[in-house]
Amino acid sequence: MDFIKQPMEIENRSMEIIAPHLEGLNLDEAQTKVYSRIIHAAGDVEYAPIIRIHPDAISAAQKAIKSGCNIYTDVEMVRTGINKRKLASFGGEVFCLVADPEVAAVAREQGITRSMAAMRAFGKKLDGAIVAIGNAPTALFEVLRMIEEDGIRPAAVVGIPVGFVGAADSKEELAKNTKVPFITVAGTKGGSPIAAASINAIMYLIDNSRF
Amino acid sequence: MDFIKQPMEIENRSMEIIAPHLEGLNLDEAQTKVYSRIIHAAGDVEYAPIIRIHPDAISAAQKAIKSGCNIYTDVEMVRTGINKRKLASFGGEVFCLVADPEVAAVAREQGITRSMAAMRAFGKKLDGAIVAIGNAPTALFEVLRMIEEDGIRPAAVVGIPVGFVGAADSKEELAKNTKVPFITVAGTKGGSPIAAASINAIMYLIDNSRF
Repeated sequence: MDFIKQPMEIENRSMEIIAPHLEGLNLDEAQTKVYSRIIHAAGDVEYAPIIRIHPDAISAAQKAIKSGCNIYTDVEMVRTGINKRKLASFGGEVFCLVADPEVAAVAREQGITRSMAAMRAFGKKLDGAIVAIGNAPTALFEVLRMIEEDGIRPAAVVGIPVGFVGAADSKEELAKNTKVPFITVAGTKGGSPIAAASINAIMYLIDNSRF
Repeated sequence: MDFIKQPMEIENRSMEIIAPHLEGLNLDEAQTKVYSRIIHAAGDVEYAPIIRIHPDAISAAQKAIKSGCNIYTDVEMVRTGINKRKLASFGGEVFCLVADPEVAAVAREQGITRSMAAMRAFGKKLDGAIVAIGNAPTALFEVLRMIEEDGIRPAAVVGIPVGFVGAADSKEELAKNTKVPFITVAGTKGGSPIAAASINAIMYLIDNSRF
């Protein structure tokens, strides 16, 4: 069994394979990097035409990260997937409350998902921060409500929940919002590795390094 | 914004939407559950025709889990995604060595990926255990080598690495192996949530509960 074993060689070869699938999409260099890393994480070139990036999203997220903002995630898998050492080099941390006992109690009491209760619990902490959602449409709907009703203003929302119940609708609502720049994917596909890959791509763009 | 907020209602509705996409695949009840949970995790019904489950894989994995086996993963995201409380109820634990400093040193020295070095480091511990790979083709190739050359015999291999460099080949090799039952997905698609969903589906089948 002969195969490529060297990490950077694997990644470079992967990016070469992805490149032709981005032709005709009129992406700038930064967008190309985010698209490529999403497609790389999914192993699925059919993401190319369904990725939606607000024109200000990458620059706003980079600016927030450089100033040391935190990232708030809906589930632990997104937190795990984000390069936390890289984020810490700018001064930021990743937080997730889905496994918090108090959040779980609120969710049970109100008959809502834990990730929805978790977003509500972050509250004002989301101002100027980055929200990264990779699993729960309910969490994204709640963040959109907080933006509309509570005046919460994250620097950017990476909202890429997955599935057949609410995911497509929640992402469509995100793409329609006019208050916060976003990165999302149309339709039912998405997930934690896609959300984490988007964040990592943005961080690596800042100084062309993952360390 | 009106949407379903109750966790079990979301999941049940999702499974109803997935069901028609499994028609004609001649799946038994257990296979149906594993397929459904994979498709649910990916938000992608196009997984249906590319999932490959060895006829003995689900029963062998269930038997191993019931006897308290451990699960060894290639990356932290797979470990994060596995329901560890449920696994602990049978006596098992999940291990991942990709962030281990000694493993990283070996990987650097040998010019191989950390997840490949991590699998090698597990060695004989994989006997009778379950291997869950959701990211690195190199880790799956290494496990296949250990099965062939070192006589390692996991109870089952859930091998669903993702990407354009080696993933499809490594999964094809896994599906051709005659020594260890497997769960895999043909082609470039896959990932940590898919591997974790397969493991969780198998655990939940044992006593129809996720707790």
